[in-house]
Amino acid sequence: MKIRFFNARIMPLSTNDNSCSIIEGELHTNGSKICYVGENVKDAEGFDREIDCKGNLIMPGFKNAHTHSAMTFLRSYADDLPLQEWLFNRVFPREDKLTPDDVYILTKLAIMEYLTSGITSCFDMYFFRDSIASAAIDTGYRMVLCGAVNGGAENAKTLSDEYQKFNNYNELISYQLGFHAEYTTSLDLMKEIARLSHEFKAPVFTHNSETEKEVAECKERHGKTPTALFEDLGMLEYGGGGFHCVHFNESDMNTFKSKGLWAVTNPGSNTKLASGIAPIWQMQKKGINIAIGTDGSASNNCLDMFREMFLVTGLQKIREKDAAVCDGLDVLTMAVKNGALAMGLVDSDCLAEGKNADLVMIDLNRPNMQPLNNIAKNLVYSGSKSNVKMTMVNGKILYENGEFFIGESPENIYRKCNETADRLR
Amino acid sequence: MKIRFFNARIMPLSTNDNSCSIIEGELHTNGSKICYVGENVKDAEGFDREIDCKGNLIMPGFKNAHTHSAMTFLRSYADDLPLQEWLFNRVFPREDKLTPDDVYILTKLAIMEYLTSGITSCFDMYFFRDSIASAAIDTGYRMVLCGAVNGGAENAKTLSDEYQKFNNYNELISYQLGFHAEYTTSLDLMKEIARLSHEFKAPVFTHNSETEKEVAECKERHGKTPTALFEDLGMLEYGGGGFHCVHFNESDMNTFKSKGLWAVTNPGSNTKLASGIAPIWQMQKKGINIAIGTDGSASNNCLDMFREMFLVTGLQKIREKDAAVCDGLDVLTMAVKNGALAMGLVDSDCLAEGKNADLVMIDLNRPNMQPLNNIAKNLVYSGSKSNVKMTMVNGKILYENGEFFIGESPENIYRKCNETADRLR
Repeated sequence: MKIRFFNARIMPLSTNDNSCSIIEGELHTNGSKICYVGENVKDAEGFDREIDCKGNLIMPGFKNAHTHSAMTFLRSYADDLPLQEWLFNRVFPREDKLTPDDVYILTKLAIMEYLTSGITSCFDMYFFRDSIASAAIDTGYRMVLCGAVNGGAENAKTLSDEYQKFNNYNELISYQLGFHAEYTTSLDLMKEIARLSHEFKAPVFTHNSETEKEVAECKERHGKTPTALFEDLGMLEYGGGGFHCVHFNESDMNTFKSKGLWAVTNPGSNTKLASGIAPIWQMQKKGINIAIGTDGSASNNCLDMFREMFLVTGLQKIREKDAAVCDGLDVLTMAVKNGALAMGLVDSDCLAEGKNADLVMIDLNRPNMQPLNNIAKNLVYSGSKSNVKMTMVNGKILYENGEFFIGESPENIYRKCNETADRLR
Repeated sequence: MKIRFFNARIMPLSTNDNSCSIIEGELHTNGSKICYVGENVKDAEGFDREIDCKGNLIMPGFKNAHTHSAMTFLRSYADDLPLQEWLFNRVFPREDKLTPDDVYILTKLAIMEYLTSGITSCFDMYFFRDSIASAAIDTGYRMVLCGAVNGGAENAKTLSDEYQKFNNYNELISYQLGFHAEYTTSLDLMKEIARLSHEFKAPVFTHNSETEKEVAECKERHGKTPTALFEDLGMLEYGGGGFHCVHFNESDMNTFKSKGLWAVTNPGSNTKLASGIAPIWQMQKKGINIAIGTDGSASNNCLDMFREMFLVTGLQKIREKDAAVCDGLDVLTMAVKNGALAMGLVDSDCLAEGKNADLVMIDLNRPNMQPLNNIAKNLVYSGSKSNVKMTMVNGKILYENGEFFIGESPENIYRKCNETADRLR
């Protein structure tokens, strides 16, 4: 399948372009790859489909660098509750009842929402990873699975087996070493994970310093912060990163900088669960790598990169009492290019010949995108799901003009997800 | 024109219903009014149009209780700047060059965006109010003009004349006494405004305690906070309220409670301009009336009640370090019913026979609204512009399935607004 997008504005977000510059021209895809980005082509032919973009924007898809997709069944089921009641009385008892089939269909629902928000791949930490992979493959979606061992049924062998299995599985699927969090994992298991990291020369990801309580209890148990513990265990020698990273001290930040780790921020979730505001601007000043995730829909509740982008910059402005910090263009870079690099998707980071055709068309002919003073800033400060006109993953259009092309009807998916939610309530 | 909405879920948000309850049934409009809300009707006939809602939600439109519509020309033109540079180097010099025709077309652009967000009326504080009124009337939009005297060309006579003129002008237009802010208005002028309030027995609205600097300087000038000053001037005897209300002390809150004033919160703007987080939960505990506004698109930048609703509750959770405060249902009430009452639109507050037909249809058949665990919470926590399927103002459908029915083409409006933005840059 060869597709031509012409009459477009194109924001390639190339590796060294931090100004989010825009060219006018066209973009071609051939199979799963981008084969041309540049000026208008005269007498272009041989395409299976030609799409007149009418001046709309083509950009690389957003990358959701931390989520728990299948938690869609808990959306609006556990709001406005204290954190402990939310987790122990609402979330955990219902998660215990989930089946692999539940996770399959609930992940499909999340993928639909990602597509409406222009998110072309996710870093998904949840259980029943075969179901997650199937949901992604069946819809045509690119998913990076994150290991989630936590000392229960899953152990270091699970992690090792899955690492080898899912990194040789399907072009849409990859896998990174990971575990749930310090507070759910024994020291012995963490040591084994560190060993695996060295064996595979692979990065390790985990929840890190999401709440004050988590950090305080880690200090009680181990005499140091989670980041210091992970470093001392030798777990950070091949990169990786932390999800949330809200309650970081100076030393944690220095470790993240020196090891080239990724801080994945989740401002929607941190806001709704009252976890706090991550020191993103402080991290930016140190040159720490930052990406953005939505977290799961029990805690956010929506899976929307536009909301997250506004929150990343807005909350920093509040935190630092300075409207000039955390420039919108940097946030756009975090949401696209950085997310891809954090997840190991080095071929989905920007629009260029040979890169994966993971891209979106943004409708500029909507009132919230007008006037066109600054399109990149429009995306961060006034963009919304209503601007996503098309989402393409791996060269296939999965969402266009409000319709889904994912192999199963939305009605079916909604019906099954409601049945699941009803059963688990 | 008689319109029948059937096969609907309906959230009337009736006066004494704080649980945001939902019924299944239908709603009829006749001209500008709602003439039926209730169970399904057998053999309904005599309608000009019958709309099968397919289980989607009909609810009263959102009310934007503080905005400066025509500032759309500054969207994404002045981001990531310190507040003073933003205001004095970017905003003011360009506002000086605006013409009445500019304000007309820029207001139309804002109205388009309000419609996409299900906002059926606005409390608009800007200059060239004839242009604002014309833009509203020509598009069919309901607008409450807010006086904006500030000691420049406009004075108390302007306010008095306009109050009488615009409250007898057109069924879509009304007017409330107002002035820009303490820091732009002389004491003599404020005294005259207080006198007018008594003459008309009318409420008075103004910017109040948006920034720390504003409150500190008011204390220097007058020895008291803005709220205390307004009270001492006798300006608050007939109600009214303040926009922003971020830096309130206990005494300010007590005054707002005892006088029945409206605190109109603008969390998007307060976030982006680093003004701070208003003490909304503290106000809720005191029983203060609270409504929500987007502020203008120079400072927000989008005009979207969904974003504002999430921010209202999310920022309180952060401020109070408690995920249980500021329940989503209360926020929904603020965004709909309270907004209407704040602006004096007592016939647009809920869905009931005889009320204005100011309503929206929310598309529940979208992934961010599924599953249907709690529709009201879905609106607040995961709703977006992409869920607004239809917006009706005063019995006329102005927006439906992404298309506008406002008497002028979007292309025309976009072109003119870009010309204006280019000219003023």
